[in-house]
Amino acid sequence: MPAPVDHDARRRDLAARACTLIARGGLEAVTYRRLAADAECSTSIVTHYFADRHELLLWSYRVAADRSQERFDAAFTASDADLIACLTALLPVSPEVADDWRVYFAFWHTATVDPVLAREQRWWQRHCRQIIADLLRRRGTDAPVARRQARVLLTLVLGIAAQALFEERSWTGQRQRVFLAAQAETLLRAFA
Amino acid sequence: MPAPVDHDARRRDLAARACTLIARGGLEAVTYRRLAADAECSTSIVTHYFADRHELLLWSYRVAADRSQERFDAAFTASDADLIACLTALLPVSPEVADDWRVYFAFWHTATVDPVLAREQRWWQRHCRQIIADLLRRRGTDAPVARRQARVLLTLVLGIAAQALFEERSWTGQRQRVFLAAQAETLLRAFA
Repeated sequence: MPAPVDHDARRRDLAARACTLIARGGLEAVTYRRLAADAECSTSIVTHYFADRHELLLWSYRVAADRSQERFDAAFTASDADLIACLTALLPVSPEVADDWRVYFAFWHTATVDPVLAREQRWWQRHCRQIIADLLRRRGTDAPVARRQARVLLTLVLGIAAQALFEERSWTGQRQRVFLAAQAETLLRAFA
Repeated sequence: MPAPVDHDARRRDLAARACTLIARGGLEAVTYRRLAADAECSTSIVTHYFADRHELLLWSYRVAADRSQERFDAAFTASDADLIACLTALLPVSPEVADDWRVYFAFWHTATVDPVLAREQRWWQRHCRQIIADLLRRRGTDAPVARRQARVLLTLVLGIAAQALFEERSWTGQRQRVFLAAQAETLLRAFA
């Protein structure tokens, strides 16, 4: 009797492979055929898990976004909930995170013309602001202020990442962190 | 004798049409055939102006980016060089500008995997920081401070646009402007 297939794990494995293909060659590089070859399975298995390319992109995005969440959580634990450490974990400070940002940009592009993907993107934006606001509340910040500050902090993270992805030399990981820390400090002081 | 063809104008007209197709249906929607049909010309004319799809995307980006520059310049003149007015002109505060941001996201995505497009993107990022720094210097800010402030201001513009494009209701044009003005004020005060 064959072992039962863990469908969710299988789907996530394929989506993770698709992330790598997107980061290396963009959306155009991701075909069912290439993904099947990469996973050493038949294209019918790929089509079984993803009805169309947008569904494949949606799952790839979720895998990459979950990795950001995991990095954020790991930084939270390792730094005892340090704000800058947690936010830096979201930035493209290493080649691995930069690859995930390549997936995010691919997703953003498609989400600008696909209502289902746009809804997913809205969910993630709200979620990111929420986890940042939760972090600020742990420091004793009032909820309304934490929400406003979280909005500014996510704005900084997105703006830094957008520049850093194309200017690796002037936005090294270290410089992203220092820049973010300086702006976050200015912000928190202004609200105090 | 036929009138001489203005090749640059022709290329820009085709690229502007490609921008509209990208904003409506994403990169996948832009085929030489569809563009030729839209421009009521033959596909051989399209291929004459754009050797491949990346070149078409590059020119589309330039057309959309030039429109941002024109909006910035118009705001500069109309507002007597008001910082917030000029920066707001870069934000997706209207459907037309939002469409240009859809083109930017399409370009960013492809630029993450194409060195030629990445170089163009770097140029525009530096250019944007430069025109913002020039604006700050007009207000009497020292050059090194203006450069640092321009970096933060562009970060805010990019971060706001990334969220606003997917959350039209919570990031109306008015809210983008107010948010940007508040953050810019905090920043400029902190540097003072």
